[in-house]
This record gives sequence, C-alpha cells and structure tokens, in this order.
Amino acid sequence: MNVTVRGHTRHYRTVAFDRTRNAVRLIEQRLLPHQFKIVATRDFRETAAAIRDMIVRGAGAIGATAAYGLAQGALAFRGSNLRQFSRHVETVYQSLKTARPTAVDPVNAMAAVRAAMRAGATVEEQQALALAAAGEFANENVLQCKAIGRHGARLIRNGMNLLTHCNAGWLAFVDVGTATAPMFAAQADGKKFHVFCDETRPRSQGATLTAWELAQQKISHQIIADSAAGYLMQRGEIDLVIVGSDRTLGRTGEVANKIGTYTKAVLARRHRIPFYVAIPLSTIDWNLKSGFDIPIEERHESEVLGAWGTMAAPSSKLRTPNSDRSVYIRVANPASGARNPGFDVTPPELIAGIITPVGLFKPKELWLRRRELGFGG
Amino acid sequence: MNVTVRGHTRHYRTVAFDRTRNAVRLIEQRLLPHQFKIVATRDFRETAAAIRDMIVRGAGAIGATAAYGLAQGALAFRGSNLRQFSRHVETVYQSLKTARPTAVDPVNAMAAVRAAMRAGATVEEQQALALAAAGEFANENVLQCKAIGRHGARLIRNGMNLLTHCNAGWLAFVDVGTATAPMFAAQADGKKFHVFCDETRPRSQGATLTAWELAQQKISHQIIADSAAGYLMQRGEIDLVIVGSDRTLGRTGEVANKIGTYTKAVLARRHRIPFYVAIPLSTIDWNLKSGFDIPIEERHESEVLGAWGTMAAPSSKLRTPNSDRSVYIRVANPASGARNPGFDVTPPELIAGIITPVGLFKPKELWLRRRELGFGG
Repeated sequence: MNVTVRGHTRHYRTVAFDRTRNAVRLIEQRLLPHQFKIVATRDFRETAAAIRDMIVRGAGAIGATAAYGLAQGALAFRGSNLRQFSRHVETVYQSLKTARPTAVDPVNAMAAVRAAMRAGATVEEQQALALAAAGEFANENVLQCKAIGRHGARLIRNGMNLLTHCNAGWLAFVDVGTATAPMFAAQADGKKFHVFCDETRPRSQGATLTAWELAQQKISHQIIADSAAGYLMQRGEIDLVIVGSDRTLGRTGEVANKIGTYTKAVLARRHRIPFYVAIPLSTIDWNLKSGFDIPIEERHESEVLGAWGTMAAPSSKLRTPNSDRSVYIRVANPASGARNPGFDVTPPELIAGIITPVGLFKPKELWLRRRELGFGG
Repeated sequence: MNVTVRGHTRHYRTVAFDRTRNAVRLIEQRLLPHQFKIVATRDFRETAAAIRDMIVRGAGAIGATAAYGLAQGALAFRGSNLRQFSRHVETVYQSLKTARPTAVDPVNAMAAVRAAMRAGATVEEQQALALAAAGEFANENVLQCKAIGRHGARLIRNGMNLLTHCNAGWLAFVDVGTATAPMFAAQADGKKFHVFCDETRPRSQGATLTAWELAQQKISHQIIADSAAGYLMQRGEIDLVIVGSDRTLGRTGEVANKIGTYTKAVLARRHRIPFYVAIPLSTIDWNLKSGFDIPIEERHESEVLGAWGTMAAPSSKLRTPNSDRSVYIRVANPASGARNPGFDVTPPELIAGIITPVGLFKPKELWLRRRELGFGG
C-alpha cells in the first residue's frame, strides 16, 4: 500500500525481496505507529530473528517472510554439490521454522518453496526455483487479499459506519490485508464511509496498526475503547462489522480470532448488524471438528497489567509524542495478577458471512462447498 | 475498610472529619494504586479543590465530602451575627457546588445539611447542627452500603466466580461500596470465591481501584481485559456479575453505568448468567421516563488514545514499579482521533435484580414498590 512519510508517498509491501543484496525487506512493525522504518535482513539467520522478535507479525506476512528467507538462505550457498546444498537448505528451513514454533504459515509457505525446488537438477536451478516460488507465494497472498477486497467491497455502501477489531490489515499480510481489503477497495470505488477501530487491548493492535493503516489511506476513522462498541450499536452508529481470523474451521464454520471478537459478534446479533469475517484460503483448518479443540494461548499477564506507548502530554493538540521511543508502564494495582487469553471462538450462527478470495460463504457452507475453496478437489 | 500499608493495618473511611483541626480527611485517590496517602484539607476551599481535582471521586464519596466541607466552612466562621453567617455559608455552598457542576450528590448532601441547620437559633447551634448532619449523611451512606452487602451476599455461594466492571467499591462511597459490598459481606461469612475485574478502559478503574480494594481485603481476584469476559463466560468460568450504577431510572428500571456495562449484560444474558446491579437509594432517578434522556458524557479522546501508569519492567517478577510517579503515554497512532462515550444504559430485561439497601428488586418493581424505596411515601 502507499505510505506517506514526511510528505513523500511510496508503495510498500509488508514483505519484499531485494535480489541485488539477497536481503528480505521488512517494515519494522514494532516501531509503528510512532516510526516507519524498513529493515533489510542480511542473511537467513537475521530473517529468522525478525520473525522471532516480531519485527514482522501476522499470518500471511510471516509466511511470506519464511518463504523469502528460505530462498535467501539457498541463494547464499556457494558451490555445486547438491548433497551439501540440501543439508544447507535443511539448516535454513529449521532455523526459520523454529522462529515461531506454533505458527503454521511459515511451514506451509516453505513447503511450497521446497516442492518447487525439486524440479531443479543443479544447485543453480534449485536456487532460481526457490526464489521464484517464494515470489509466487507472496504474489498469491496479495492476489487473494485483492479478491477478498472485491467481494467484500459490495457490502460497503455510501455513508456506512463500520467496526473492526484488532489488525487484519496489510501489515499482517504481504499487502492489502483481509478485514481491511474491502475498505481499501470500497474507497477505490469512491465510496464514503467511517470506520471505528476497537483499540484491542491488551496489545492495542487496533489503536496502533489498524488506525495507522487507515490514516495512511486517508480513510475516515476513530479509535474506541473495546467497551464502547455496544453503546455505538445501541445508538445505531454501526452498520457493518468486518474482522479477520487466525483460524476458521472448515467443518463447522467456527472462527478463532483475537480476544474480544466473540463479544462483538454477540452484540452485532442483538442489534441485527451483519458480522463478516474476511479470510484467505490458508487460514481454513479442514481437520478440527470443534472450536473447543482450538488451543487458546494464555499470554503473559504483563500485557493486561500495563501498556506500551511513547511519553506524551495527554492533550489532543500535542499529538506528536515527546519521543519515538516506546516504553512500558504498569497501569494496574502492583499486588494484583491477571488472566490473559489471547483468542476466542465465534460460533457460526453469529456470522452473516465469510468473505473469501472466491466469494462470500455462509459459515456452514464452507464444508459443503469445500471444492470451490480448494479442499478435497 | 482495613488498609495494610508496610505491614500496618488500620481502618479508614474514604471521607472522614477531623474535628480538632476542622479538616476533611480524604484518601488521595489519584495516587492509588501506587501510593496510599491521606490528605487533610485545611479549609472549605481546599475541600472544593479536592472534589474538583478528583482527589476524591465516586458519587457517595463526593456527596459526603461536600457535606463535611459545608460543615467545615460553617465551623470556621468567627462571630455571632446570623446574617453574616448565612452569607458566609452561601459562599461555602457555592464553592463546593461548582467543584463538580454535573454531579447531583454534593447538592443533595448539602441540602440535607442546610435543612438541619435551620433548627438552630444561634451561629453556634447551627455550626453544631451542620457537623452533626454531615456526620449523619456519611453514616447513612455507610449503613446503606452495609445493607446492600447483607442482601447481596446471599447471591454469592462458595466456589463461585464473579465478574465486576469499573469501581463501585468503598473508595467511591464513604465505606464498603455497592458492587463490592456483597463480596466483603460474603468474605466475612467465610465464603470462598474469585472475582474477575474488568480493567475498564479507558480510565482503568477496575485494574487500579477495584483490584487494589480486593487485594487489600485479600479477596482472590484477577484483572482481565474488557474483551476477555465473553471468553470466560463461554468456558463457564463466570457464575455471577455484580456492577454499580451512576443513575438508575425508578420508572423504567434502566441502569446507566460506566461504558462497557451494557456489553457485559448482553453477554451474561446469552450465557444465562445472573447480572445484578447494586445501588444506594440516592442513585435512583424518579423523574426521567426513558434511558435515552440520560445525558451521556463524551469525554476527552486522550483517555482512549493513551494510558496512565508508572514506569516499570513488563516482567511479573518486577511488580514493584520503578517509581510511584504516574505518567501518561500515547499508545495510539498519533494521527488518529477517538470517540469516548463515558457511560452506557442497560435495559431492564437484561438485569436479574437490583440490590438495594432495603432488599432485592426486579428492575420493573422499582416503580411499583417505590414507597419501600422512600419515594412518594
């Protein structure tokens, strides 16, 4: 997407490859929204560290980073001995795989790269195939997000107020994003609308990343406390909810996403507001038979007990922070602990539709129409 | 309630009067939970400033502070000229009244003090009556909270998990509180239970004040993000919800309370979890005919865009903050704004019962049984 920094506008992908320098180029997401900076990893170990240390986060984005990291590692090999090359590639693979051990996207992305490499007879051929496959994976991710945007944009009418939760924007993918894709597409169609971003405690991805993305695209938006959406719905100020998903069960239509998503779905149902989930095909889990089988990560209590930000004056006229440096503050009573479940599961009956790259589906239709979604075909 | 600071336990009221020094003694709530400090206001102007600057906050607490402040001002008068005394008392009254112009509790509390003073024939008699009436107002507040505790404690059974939102604890009243009163009473009865405190963004009164109160009373509790309650309800981890109220409509049973209360009521209904509201009689509004007539304050966006706390390391082993000094940090994207409604309105059909000092009521019974609640009798 286009990013404007100090008056200069340029197009960026969240993840890109610099062939000349054999480097993976990433947006340093830990500095957002306070600083926009591109980092280039010099070798596959730095790329693995970038995934591990969350310079890059989001399912699609870390998948593409791992794919490019595998190609980067392969391209760095000097020599023509295929056996030595294979051992080297295995080392690269393991390094990237263990950077985020619970994530499935890097594994799937690297599997595609390795499958493509098998067609090469020489080290050089395999190196070229690896890079081509990584680029294809990234491009496919972008194409899927754009297709989600086309299908989802039809839901957005002029004058609507939207609600979204957490960040399923372009920073979480290679470009365009999922929940944000219909917004970007509707804006390109000339539609006017307003987006309320749940701040999304405890990590505030809505207040930081989604708000930054919408501000960069000049889409009208306001951040709200997670508790405020019910009030806005009561007053008729929300017409449509679009969120992303970390895992959607193809067999049941259940949607796992950032903690608080379920609450928004319950509120939307009470107020008869359509609640949509935007997903790329890779987040559909065709195996699990129940949402209760989805492991829900309990994260560190420090996230709930405090907050990260930059020192600033609390006046709206001083929106420029005193410093770009992010600090942690303890908000809560020092003698108290916290519970911090990271995700929740929304049942299909609360979901008006799933926006996929191949069109809109009712949650229960995912399984019946699984061939259209590329499963079991 | 009892407060333990550096190993020493003492009983405190949120608001008390020091007759020897003619001073109102207040807990400096802006320093909690990081520091516990008592301040004594030396004259009525300092007392008005304490209300205005939120050293003391909460409906019952500022009511009692204004009542004591009026007595404090009256007692400071030297002389026996009743007309001069009356003019002086009017000055004191106006100063305290304008400290928090939208609050109704200081006005009602001071009306009770002035009504009592009329029985006095001399300045000295009126001064004595003012102090007696202020003390009576504070004691009545405590008695009502204790009665709420007795009626509400019956709802709490051994092993239960409770949820509360914001702070309707003893810091918001003179002692005991409203939503917390049943918890303190159940603990005194020897019952074991666990309380989840919504952190209550944007001002985090749950994470700071309620958690501090529960920790001080050694009641098992954990802070959660406002978004996490739905997940806990899905998993059967919440059995009972008790909240306070800023204004309850006697004619309709609608409850205005901190933003996010309505969301918890909607979730509780979906999961068939009883949702109770604890209120003193003074928060019943017998005039308004619809919850839509309750003015909902839109507060400053800086509350949503940032957070207040003390600099600390995000490790749970370092719960002691680096400093007692509270700072503000900007969390959100600097180029984004926020909506910040302060309250919402919960309809009667979502409320299992209202816990009052004279017993439990269905929301719709408030009007039918209004004489028991002291209205129109």
